[in-house]
Amino acid sequence: MINLDLTHSLDLKKLDSYQEKVSKINKMIEEKTGEGNDYLGWVDWPERYDRNEVKEMIEAAHYVRENFDILVVCGIGGSYLGARAALEALKGLKYNDSLEIVFMGQTFSPNYVSQVLDYLKGKRFAINVISKSGTTTETSISFRLLKQLLEQQVGKEKARKAIFATTDKEKGALRTLSNKEGYKTFVLPRDIGGRYSVLTPVGLFPLACAGLDIEAMLLGAHEAHVKYNNDNIHENICYQYALVRDYMYHHNKSVEMYVTYEPSMNQLSEWLKQLFGESEGKQKKALYPGSACFTTDLHSLGQLIQDGTPLLFETIINVLNPEKDVVIPYDEDNLDELNYLKGRSLNFVNQKAFEGTLKAHSEEANVPCNLLLVDRMDEKTLGHLFYFFMRACAMSAYLLEINPFNQPGVEIYKRNMFHLLGKKGY
Amino acid sequence: MINLDLTHSLDLKKLDSYQEKVSKINKMIEEKTGEGNDYLGWVDWPERYDRNEVKEMIEAAHYVRENFDILVVCGIGGSYLGARAALEALKGLKYNDSLEIVFMGQTFSPNYVSQVLDYLKGKRFAINVISKSGTTTETSISFRLLKQLLEQQVGKEKARKAIFATTDKEKGALRTLSNKEGYKTFVLPRDIGGRYSVLTPVGLFPLACAGLDIEAMLLGAHEAHVKYNNDNIHENICYQYALVRDYMYHHNKSVEMYVTYEPSMNQLSEWLKQLFGESEGKQKKALYPGSACFTTDLHSLGQLIQDGTPLLFETIINVLNPEKDVVIPYDEDNLDELNYLKGRSLNFVNQKAFEGTLKAHSEEANVPCNLLLVDRMDEKTLGHLFYFFMRACAMSAYLLEINPFNQPGVEIYKRNMFHLLGKKGY
Repeated sequence: MINLDLTHSLDLKKLDSYQEKVSKINKMIEEKTGEGNDYLGWVDWPERYDRNEVKEMIEAAHYVRENFDILVVCGIGGSYLGARAALEALKGLKYNDSLEIVFMGQTFSPNYVSQVLDYLKGKRFAINVISKSGTTTETSISFRLLKQLLEQQVGKEKARKAIFATTDKEKGALRTLSNKEGYKTFVLPRDIGGRYSVLTPVGLFPLACAGLDIEAMLLGAHEAHVKYNNDNIHENICYQYALVRDYMYHHNKSVEMYVTYEPSMNQLSEWLKQLFGESEGKQKKALYPGSACFTTDLHSLGQLIQDGTPLLFETIINVLNPEKDVVIPYDEDNLDELNYLKGRSLNFVNQKAFEGTLKAHSEEANVPCNLLLVDRMDEKTLGHLFYFFMRACAMSAYLLEINPFNQPGVEIYKRNMFHLLGKKGY
Repeated sequence: MINLDLTHSLDLKKLDSYQEKVSKINKMIEEKTGEGNDYLGWVDWPERYDRNEVKEMIEAAHYVRENFDILVVCGIGGSYLGARAALEALKGLKYNDSLEIVFMGQTFSPNYVSQVLDYLKGKRFAINVISKSGTTTETSISFRLLKQLLEQQVGKEKARKAIFATTDKEKGALRTLSNKEGYKTFVLPRDIGGRYSVLTPVGLFPLACAGLDIEAMLLGAHEAHVKYNNDNIHENICYQYALVRDYMYHHNKSVEMYVTYEPSMNQLSEWLKQLFGESEGKQKKALYPGSACFTTDLHSLGQLIQDGTPLLFETIINVLNPEKDVVIPYDEDNLDELNYLKGRSLNFVNQKAFEGTLKAHSEEANVPCNLLLVDRMDEKTLGHLFYFFMRACAMSAYLLEINPFNQPGVEIYKRNMFHLLGKKGY
C-alpha cells in the first residue's frame, strides 16, 4: 500500500543506535504512558471508534446529499485541515459532485467571509460546525453569521435540521446550543487533540457528505495501527521515517520540505505542517516544515533546492497510479517537438519527472530525499497514511523529549488579541 | 500607498554601513550595468511599455468577455504565478464574474489535467498560452490537449479566434505556430525574465480578461519606479527591505516567512517565493522562503513560530482596509460569548489579531517582524507592490553577489527527465 525508500537519504545502519529508545517510546505510545497521555486516544481509535456513530454519520450524509447543494464546513486548525486535505487528495481540485463543500470559520478575513456569504445567498446549504468548546473566535463568528443567514433564508425550524455540530460529548457552548436547538451532533473525543482528529467525526462527517467511504478510511488506519505497533526499526517504516527526521535535525538540516507531484495533495502538506510543526515546535527545537508541488514549483523553488541553501531535505510523497490519466496526442506539425511523447500518458511523464528530479536533487545537489511511495490514493490508503504520519510524529517528538500533544504557545496571540478586543478577563 | 515599518525587526542604524554599496548597486540596476543586465528590461518597463499593445490587450479582453465563459491560462512558473497572484489578491477566492479563469499548463498531474479537460467539455472557452519558446514541456503538452479539445468542439476556424498567444516577438515554436494559424499574439519581451514578467502581457492579458484595470497597475509600477530609484537608504523603503533581509541572512536567520492576513493573498506569497528563491538560490546562499496566512495558520504553525525553531523571521503584508467587510451581529443567547464584539467589523477583529500576534511573535518570541502596511489592495497598489518586490530582490541578490536573473540549476532536472523520456539529444 505504501512503501518508504531511504536509499536517497541515508544509510539505514546509521539508525541502528536508536533501537533501544524506539522500543521504549513505542511502549509509551501503545500503552499511553508517555507525556501528554491524556491525548493518546488516537492510538487505538481505529479499533475502538463508535460503529453506531459511523452509521449515523453515513445516514446523515445521505440526508445532506439529498437535501442540499452545499455543505459549509466551519472549523479551524485541526477542525479544518484534515477534512480539506482528504477531500482534495481523494476528489481532486476540479471535482464534479452534486454536493459542493465550502470551508469557512478558518479566518477573520473580511473579504473571504463576505464572498462566501454572498455566494451562499439563495442557495440550499447545510452547516457542519466543528469546535470542541464552541468559543473558538474565528469559528464562532463565522457560525453566527452562517446561522443568521440560514435562518433568514429557511426559517428557524428548517435551519435546525440543516445544522450538524461536531463537539464535546457533554461540555462547552456548542454542546449547550446543540442540545437547546436539537441539532444532530457528533462527538469530538476528549482524548484526541485537533491535529490528530481527522479520523474522528471532525474529518469523517464532511468526507461522508462528499460521498467518500469513511469506513474504508478507518480500516486503512486500523491496518496501519497493526503494522506500525512494532518496535523493530528494521521492519517498521513508520519509525524509520521518524528516525530519519531526527537524524537530519541533529545533522544540520533545519527545513523539511514535503513534496508531492499532485496539486490535489497541496492540502495534505498543509495538514502535515500542522501535525509536525505544532507537535514539535517547542523548546526552540523542531524542523521548519515547508512544502512544494512538483513540477510546478520546480519552476519557482527548483533553483533554490538545486544550488541554494544547504539546510533542506525532502520528504516526497509520490502516488504511482493516478485516478485518471490522459494520453498525449500526435500532432502533424509537431512545432512544439512533442511527438516523441505521442501515445505516452501524462503519468508516464510525471513519473519520469519524479525520477529525473530525484537524481538532480539527491545526487547532484546532495539534498537527502526520503521517498514515500503510495500505490494509489483511495480512502483506505489515505486512512493508512494519516495514521502513519501521526504515529511517526509521536515517535519523532518523543525522541526530541517533547510532549507531542500540547500547544502552549498558541495561547499567547489569543491572549493579546482578547486584551485588544476588550474581552472580559483579559 | 505602502509603508515599511521595521521597528519590530531591527534598529535602522544597523543598516547605515550599507549606504555605499547601495548607491553603487542602485546605479547598476538603473543603468542596467550589473551582472545579468540582459534581463534588466523590467526596470524601466513601466515607462517604456508599448501603449498600443496595452490598448490591444484591453480590446481583446472585451472580446473574450463577450464571447466566452472561461479563459484557460496555460503557462508555468513566471507565466503562471504572477497572473494568478494578482487575480486572487484583487478579486478574492470566491469571486463572482461572468468570465471564469482556469489555470493549466503548470503541471503534469494526470488527475488535474483530466479534471480540467472534463470541466471544459461543452463549455465556451478561450485559451491564453504563455511561453517564450513554445517548448516548455508542461505548458506545451497542456496546450496540445486544450487546442485539440477546442478544435473538436468549435472547429479549426473558430478555434483560431479563441487562442491568444503570449510569446517572443520573432522566434520560437509558439511564434511560428501563431503566425501560421493567425492567432492574436502579445509580446513577451526578451529582456525580461519569467519571474519579473507580471507587468508585461504575461500577467496583464489574463488580468484584463478578468476585468481588471491593467493601466492602473502599470501606473502604480511607474510611481514605484520613480520612488525607489533613490539610493538614500534613509528614504527608500524598498532598499530598506532588501537590507533587512541581507542583515537577517548574515545574522543566523535562514527562513523568511511571508505572512498575510488574507487567504486571497496566499498566491502572492507563492509569487514571492519564486521571485526571491529563484533569484537568490545560488552558490549555496539564500534564505528559504516560507509562507503562512494568519490567523488560519496560527492554528497550525503558530506554536512553531512562538516556541520552536529560532531560524525564522517574518515579513508581514497587512492590508489595512478590505474591499468588503461584515459586521458581527448580536445574539440573544450569547452562548458563544461573542456579544462583546457585536457591531464590530471582521476587519476590526482581524487587525487586532494582527497587533496581538505581532506582540506575541516580536516581543515574546523574539522573532523579527518586518511590516509592510498596505492601505488598500487595488490595481494601482498591486502594480506598485510588484515593482517594490522586484527592485528589492535585485538589490538583495546583488548584495549577496549573485546574478538575480539567471537560473542555471533549473535545467538539471529537465536534462535528466528528457534523458529518461528518450528525447533526442539527451
